Amino acid sequence: MKIKFPWQDRPIDSDEVIWRYSDNPIIKRDQISTSNSIFNSAVVPFESGYAGVFRCDNKAVQMNIHSGFSKDGINWEINPEPIIFRSDGTTEIFRDYKYDPRVVFIEDRYWITWCEGHNGPTIGIGYTFNFKEFFQCENAFLPFNRNGILFPNKINDKYAMLSRPSDNGHTAFGDIYLSYSPDMKFWGEHRHVMSPTSFKDSAWQCTKVGAGSVPVLTEEGWIMFYHGVITTCNGFRYAMGSVILDKENPHVVKYRTQPYLLTPSEIYEQVGDVPNVIFPCASLIDEEADKVSIYYGAADTVVALAFGKLSEIIKYTIGNSL
Amino acid sequence: MKIKFPWQDRPIDSDEVIWRYSDNPIIKRDQISTSNSIFNSAVVPFESGYAGVFRCDNKAVQMNIHSGFSKDGINWEINPEPIIFRSDGTTEIFRDYKYDPRVVFIEDRYWITWCEGHNGPTIGIGYTFNFKEFFQCENAFLPFNRNGILFPNKINDKYAMLSRPSDNGHTAFGDIYLSYSPDMKFWGEHRHVMSPTSFKDSAWQCTKVGAGSVPVLTEEGWIMFYHGVITTCNGFRYAMGSVILDKENPHVVKYRTQPYLLTPSEIYEQVGDVPNVIFPCASLIDEEADKVSIYYGAADTVVALAFGKLSEIIKYTIGNSL
Amino acid sequence: MKIKFPWQDRPIDSDEVIWRYSDNPIIKRDQISTSNSIFNSAVVPFESGYAGVFRCDNKAVQMNIHSGFSKDGINWEINPEPIIFRSDGTTEIFRDYKYDPRVVFIEDRYWITWCEGHNGPTIGIGYTFNFKEFFQCENAFLPFNRNGILFPNKINDKYAMLSRPSDNGHTAFGDIYLSYSPDMKFWGEHRHVMSPTSFKDSAWQCTKVGAGSVPVLTEEGWIMFYHGVITTCNGFRYAMGSVILDKENPHVVKYRTQPYLLTPSEIYEQVGDVPNVIFPCASLIDEEADKVSIYYGAADTVVALAFGKLSEIIKYTIGNSL
Amino acid sequence: MKIKFPWQDRPIDSDEVIWRYSDNPIIKRDQISTSNSIFNSAVVPFESGYAGVFRCDNKAVQMNIHSGFSKDGINWEINPEPIIFRSDGTTEIFRDYKYDPRVVFIEDRYWITWCEGHNGPTIGIGYTFNFKEFFQCENAFLPFNRNGILFPNKINDKYAMLSRPSDNGHTAFGDIYLSYSPDMKFWGEHRHVMSPTSFKDSAWQCTKVGAGSVPVLTEEGWIMFYHGVITTCNGFRYAMGSVILDKENPHVVKYRTQPYLLTPSEIYEQVGDVPNVIFPCASLIDEEADKVSIYYGAADTVVALAFGKLSEIIKYTIGNSL
Amino acid sequence: MKIKFPWQDRPIDSDEVIWRYSDNPIIKRDQISTSNSIFNSAVVPFESGYAGVFRCDNKAVQMNIHSGFSKDGINWEINPEPIIFRSDGTTEIFRDYKYDPRVVFIEDRYWITWCEGHNGPTIGIGYTFNFKEFFQCENAFLPFNRNGILFPNKINDKYAMLSRPSDNGHTAFGDIYLSYSPDMKFWGEHRHVMSPTSFKDSAWQCTKVGAGSVPVLTEEGWIMFYHGVITTCNGFRYAMGSVILDKENPHVVKYRTQPYLLTPSEIYEQVGDVPNVIFPCASLIDEEADKVSIYYGAADTVVALAFGKLSEIIKYTIGNSL
Amino acid sequence: MKIKFPWQDRPIDSDEVIWRYSDNPIIKRDQISTSNSIFNSAVVPFESGYAGVFRCDNKAVQMNIHSGFSKDGINWEINPEPIIFRSDGTTEIFRDYKYDPRVVFIEDRYWITWCEGHNGPTIGIGYTFNFKEFFQCENAFLPFNRNGILFPNKINDKYAMLSRPSDNGHTAFGDIYLSYSPDMKFWGEHRHVMSPTSFKDSAWQCTKVGAGSVPVLTEEGWIMFYHGVITTCNGFRYAMGSVILDKENPHVVKYRTQPYLLTPSEIYEQVGDVPNVIFPCASLIDEEADKVSIYYGAADTVVALAFGKLSEIIKYTIGNSL
Repeated sequence: MKIKFPWQDRPIDSDEVIWRYSDNPIIKRDQISTSNSIFNSAVVPFESGYAGVFRCDNKAVQMNIHSGFSKDGINWEINPEPIIFRSDGTTEIFRDYKYDPRVVFIEDRYWITWCEGHNGPTIGIGYTFNFKEFFQCENAFLPFNRNGILFPNKINDKYAMLSRPSDNGHTAFGDIYLSYSPDMKFWGEHRHVMSPTSFKDSAWQCTKVGAGSVPVLTEEGWIMFYHGVITTCNGFRYAMGSVILDKENPHVVKYRTQPYLLTPSEIYEQVGDVPNVIFPCASLIDEEADKVSIYYGAADTVVALAFGKLSEIIKYTIGNSL
Repeated sequence: MKIKFPWQDRPIDSDEVIWRYSDNPIIKRDQISTSNSIFNSAVVPFESGYAGVFRCDNKAVQMNIHSGFSKDGINWEINPEPIIFRSDGTTEIFRDYKYDPRVVFIEDRYWITWCEGHNGPTIGIGYTFNFKEFFQCENAFLPFNRNGILFPNKINDKYAMLSRPSDNGHTAFGDIYLSYSPDMKFWGEHRHVMSPTSFKDSAWQCTKVGAGSVPVLTEEGWIMFYHGVITTCNGFRYAMGSVILDKENPHVVKYRTQPYLLTPSEIYEQVGDVPNVIFPCASLIDEEADKVSIYYGAADTVVALAFGKLSEIIKYTIGNSL
Repeated sequence: MKIKFPWQDRPIDSDEVIWRYSDNPIIKRDQISTSNSIFNSAVVPFESGYAGVFRCDNKAVQMNIHSGFSKDGINWEINPEPIIFRSDGTTEIFRDYKYDPRVVFIEDRYWITWCEGHNGPTIGIGYTFNFKEFFQCENAFLPFNRNGILFPNKINDKYAMLSRPSDNGHTAFGDIYLSYSPDMKFWGEHRHVMSPTSFKDSAWQCTKVGAGSVPVLTEEGWIMFYHGVITTCNGFRYAMGSVILDKENPHVVKYRTQPYLLTPSEIYEQVGDVPNVIFPCASLIDEEADKVSIYYGAADTVVALAFGKLSEIIKYTIGNSL
Repeated sequence: MKIKFPWQDRPIDSDEVIWRYSDNPIIKRDQISTSNSIFNSAVVPFESGYAGVFRCDNKAVQMNIHSGFSKDGINWEINPEPIIFRSDGTTEIFRDYKYDPRVVFIEDRYWITWCEGHNGPTIGIGYTFNFKEFFQCENAFLPFNRNGILFPNKINDKYAMLSRPSDNGHTAFGDIYLSYSPDMKFWGEHRHVMSPTSFKDSAWQCTKVGAGSVPVLTEEGWIMFYHGVITTCNGFRYAMGSVILDKENPHVVKYRTQPYLLTPSEIYEQVGDVPNVIFPCASLIDEEADKVSIYYGAADTVVALAFGKLSEIIKYTIGNSL
Repeated sequence: MKIKFPWQDRPIDSDEVIWRYSDNPIIKRDQISTSNSIFNSAVVPFESGYAGVFRCDNKAVQMNIHSGFSKDGINWEINPEPIIFRSDGTTEIFRDYKYDPRVVFIEDRYWITWCEGHNGPTIGIGYTFNFKEFFQCENAFLPFNRNGILFPNKINDKYAMLSRPSDNGHTAFGDIYLSYSPDMKFWGEHRHVMSPTSFKDSAWQCTKVGAGSVPVLTEEGWIMFYHGVITTCNGFRYAMGSVILDKENPHVVKYRTQPYLLTPSEIYEQVGDVPNVIFPCASLIDEEADKVSIYYGAADTVVALAFGKLSEIIKYTIGNSL
Repeated sequence: MKIKFPWQDRPIDSDEVIWRYSDNPIIKRDQISTSNSIFNSAVVPFESGYAGVFRCDNKAVQMNIHSGFSKDGINWEINPEPIIFRSDGTTEIFRDYKYDPRVVFIEDRYWITWCEGHNGPTIGIGYTFNFKEFFQCENAFLPFNRNGILFPNKINDKYAMLSRPSDNGHTAFGDIYLSYSPDMKFWGEHRHVMSPTSFKDSAWQCTKVGAGSVPVLTEEGWIMFYHGVITTCNGFRYAMGSVILDKENPHVVKYRTQPYLLTPSEIYEQVGDVPNVIFPCASLIDEEADKVSIYYGAADTVVALAFGKLSEIIKYTIGNSL
């Protein structure tokens, strides 16, 4: 039986490529009793529904990641306790903090990546077979790094990860790089993928850019949703665009939206712990039905959902490329 | 036949000098389909109604200015395409970006000034006779400069322009200066007009001030609405005041409001692409009826409208002067 | 006859230790006609009701403190004129600005402390017997300092004051100290009380902390509500916690909440002149009824009210201590 | 009789294009009794020798400009009193401070430009016929601007001035622009001339660049010495390069040295009020003898002299151009 | 028998009010084997010679203060071990670090003040009767503060201390204040004394000013040497001036030098751990002989000595006052 | 025949653990005609003498690395042309800039690491067998990183590299990490090694620390010279210390000098392109003779040499450990 796909048709009066779920946010800040906020979270199809890994900042504003489950991708049960990772044999597991997870199924298991505190943020890696037991591996990189996203397939027989080298604070720069690993332990062959734009070409992404959702392979290449940031006189504003990377050489950008696809304009995106943030972390695809659902954190406070047609998004990305 | 003046009487329960239009904002962020936001825009009486020049940031957040027309000053048709300027003989027209326009009729044509990107922001100048064909002239000044406002008459046989020298970012300082030109091409005789206040005297305008609307000549002198900025721990907040400049020597400030006239306190002023911004760019005057309508950008996202009685505003400015 | 205590029972669906008044904010920004905002204000039982000292920024955004009175602690009459202080014999009274008052009754009079401008912020001290005549004393400390809070009793025969040394701007650090005085004029015996936490232990209070309400003596020690600040990429966010100080040596922290008690999540706390601020300045206690009412400034714009049970707060503070 | 030209042959062991005078600095910091430092000064041939305008900071570190005279261009008599400027009819002369002068003879008189304080630095203009009486004109531009250099001829019948728009502090950016004036009073036709380089192309000039000496017309175009600045972890370092501008369109850069010509490496350039500064302000040319003498400020403290062969400098500039 | 006064006559070719000792620095950075640098130190007449308290940073660059002795005020024996302070009964002595001491004899003992680390710099106080045993008292103020200087007499029966409130880093601001204490334990009656100047009036002291030597009572008032700081593009530069304070109301400035008295211009002042620093900490006076010797730290590395005639310094201060 | 070891005995009057070469600097800034400066360079024994890799900034201040040779380790012939690297099969070699090289012999070849520009600094890797042909491999890490140092042996069958994650500018933080690689291509197993100290414990190394020389295995563990940085009000100051790392687990610090071993105090270390820098990049060891020679960059301008006895350095490091 096919899993129920989270979906809502485009509103009649809309001609947007991407539209929001009418009952956003789908996850409120206090959905679990200990949470200050739940946002920047990732989901995957799992068994007869969906599993997810959720960033839940508790009321001490300690950052951690929790598992969750849903039948329809919209209504979620989130585990009130954080995920407990066991070592996969690595001698040390660092536990400063964990945030902004992504999830992807590769070969035989679900890989989770996140921002791990190790005297500064870097990319943590773990896996699970069943979303019950979780194993943590070596961190991918040295600090300072954020937004590590694994490709869903090996490329040239190696794991491939996008990431955004940063610094130890509210980084005011950010390029996306690609790195490879033969074993998910040692990483190299680093390639530059994309930079912020100039202010005059596309100001919404002129301060920094970071990978968002796990790339999806299409005929045109790997399509991914990413966040771009502008610096206003009142701080950063995060919006979402899409990029298509070359199939064989995914550090080569083929197309990249000059306009954003989604920018903070609903109250739950404009008001919250950090105003004016749209931060995509996952997408679900129903290729047959040409449907895409995008999960994004809003205002660093809640999780929201947006929809689009895959073919239209590809067409728009190609037709509005920088 | 007299043009319909945009107006709403003061609410019965209000004793404010300036009051807002009840259906604000009059222009939404997405009034044209390609726009991210429409704000900081200027209007003038034109033919049997009004014409305007509108700052429309598109969805790539590229800044440009568009023409628009209205019968009543409230409901506007905005041209979905940016204004195309032809050179008036100048060898080069720069096109990095255009924003924050003002418009004024002098002698035989409508002059438009705006913030023009020329390796940094400076004051662009253009004109039109009919709001169909537009001509661009030499930039008035070297970078970095913003908020260039022309007086509606020549003064001592020269054009006169207020402006606010700045830097290349979210400038944390700003004084208003006056400059003269015999020919709208070469500028000199620069005079200092006004500075930010001290924190203790009038904190809402203690970081920077900038000219807003085209000055209007009254018996007391030139009255103008301007913006003042305070630096809070969460960024800048922009509010609006009024100033009366000397008739013959308009770099001399006669009166200047110590209190603001309008500060962000409606949700469309407090929430948006840049929270807490009121930025006046134009006023309309019906001197007979003693009516003033002020157009201001709100939250760097939309255009709003406010009203007042000219005589009261003058009296208030004199009575509450720094 | 007992004074009416401002109170509302916990909502049925809530299990929070602290809950908000359902008609918040209790004081609007324009409650007096000259005010831009009224917030960060303090109250005490007085005669058959309550008296308060209110921070009212006027429309020039000049900061001053006003007296006010209430029968029920919820509906307030605020004096439209600022408090006029007479010298208590000190040769000079400085009047740059006054903000963020606290009030406490000690022995025979009501002492008021506030942030006083003296070439930079420091702690002003004054007193009144009747909230009609007010006397100003010497400033407690050299600049730069804020959030001076007096204990309601002498300790070891000396007045005791908490404060937060700062700098002259939007200070990005802040520890709480305790100082003593034999005569409310000369101050010494300075002791360090508490610091911000590490980012990973309790991020909501990792930038700075400052004393909030006047400490209340309980069996466990002095309980006080304080503010903690985190630096987001869009500025500061202020939340509220509680701390219990040792009875005899009140510079010794016995317990301090790792989670916050209240964080900005209502629109009047998230949107305003400074978004995302909860700033407690006073509490009322009905020990018999085990009731606590906390007055806090919201978004640097209005005054709001929250409630809790004293015994529960103490238990929570002990049980969730850093 | 020909004026004695300040000169020293290239040291035998040197193959540098530019070499220093062996008795540098030629003007010490205390050459006049009231001075803290004398530097960044300009000279011209005058009568049977040379005249100069010198930046002398007095012992209150107030900046002003003084006249001086020399028979040989090396030994100078500097007037202990600052130049007194009379108005040339302009209504106001601003006198906040004056520094970094340049001098050029055009048509019938010696024009002096400098950095003039007018609520921030901008370009002051004055003239003299005899270095005894001095007249001050309108400032050329609005603040903030520095390093205004006039061309020695009118270009297309207009005066032409290079300048470097800046901000109000130790500006961390700086491009050179060209502006024109029909009358030395009103300025326009602003053109961008040159920017800092990228870090990897020529790091010594990657923070900012500013015009130095008055351009000299050669067959290849206008040659000028300029300063370029790099930001080290211990502040700015100023070095000197040369640029050749197009004859007819002097905002067009034809050649520009990728290597510097002179960088701080003598103790009087490396140690002083501001370490590591070489700041050229004037050059003398003996075209027949192919000799160039360059006057530069060293370490913001003294005046030094360097020499080169004009033909070699042109060849080097062309051969080592960016 | 009279103590030998450290002295050298003014050089014949000098007309300066202050002149340097020809064998400066008198104390080298490595005079004791464990020291990285010895600077910013204070001396007093003691028994048949002089005693001093010296800032010695050790080779871990830990800051501490050492005692030392001299017969002639020029050749010093410095104790290789830091001063050990015993508590004078205060419950706690903080020992984070100690630097920049001053010494003064009042009534019956030698009081030492210094910058004491107490979660940030503040003013430590101690005393000795014999420079063998040392006692530490309560810190005078809350952090952050530096350059605490005691007057040599009680004023109106109270101890009086100058200090410079600061922040926790390389403070970019600094005013001098005066505070009083009845008992050297509790401090109050804070008065503002002097601020930095404007850039145009006296740029060498436009960033911050701080008290230097212990004030000396003369007929004109209390004369004191202080440091003033300018911010160059390569950091701070410290120079020395003098100020005369009113006899009865020493927070009133009667005269203050617009020019500096001494600015870094010798290699040992310009080059060292922190280039371009002159930092006076003590003076000796031989009133009969009209001689003043000033001890100052140079380049945060060594101790140097300068001389002047008291009558001339007073005259110069009055004649060159701001 | 044994290679001549660069050496000078300790001066008779010295009791320092490390002493300087009396003819420092051994390499001047202009030793090759195209160089602006030569500093931060590394050497190894090679054939019958020594080979080195030198950072030579050219006169455009472009950074590159050059080979050089010496018979005695003191007098060097430096190749005027930069090293040309051929790809070892990697598809791309980035060439933005190269600086701060280190060299180490492992197994069969000389490995070179350096700071490589790849949209920001990271660690470049190359090798040579003969210092004639050079091959470049994949960069070790993602930007931003500096000071990559390889261990001279594999550890647990893997290459091991120390590095200092940084940002893209004059990084104000810096910890040393250790990473492993099975193949010099893919890197992982990142471990934190050491952080800056607190200001009060050892201020000379309180801003950042970075690995300097290739670690040398001794009985006590791996000894390495490193740089530590303090932030003064005039910028950074770099000094040198030593650290002993655990033999088997070299990310474990066994001993680390609280005092520095060498701090800028000679004129060639205090004055230059960047004042006050000592930056060790290599050491030579004659274990039999107990001699160590340390090569360090001075003032970012020249190369200098210092000496010590290995046994004494180890003893000092253990005896003066933090």
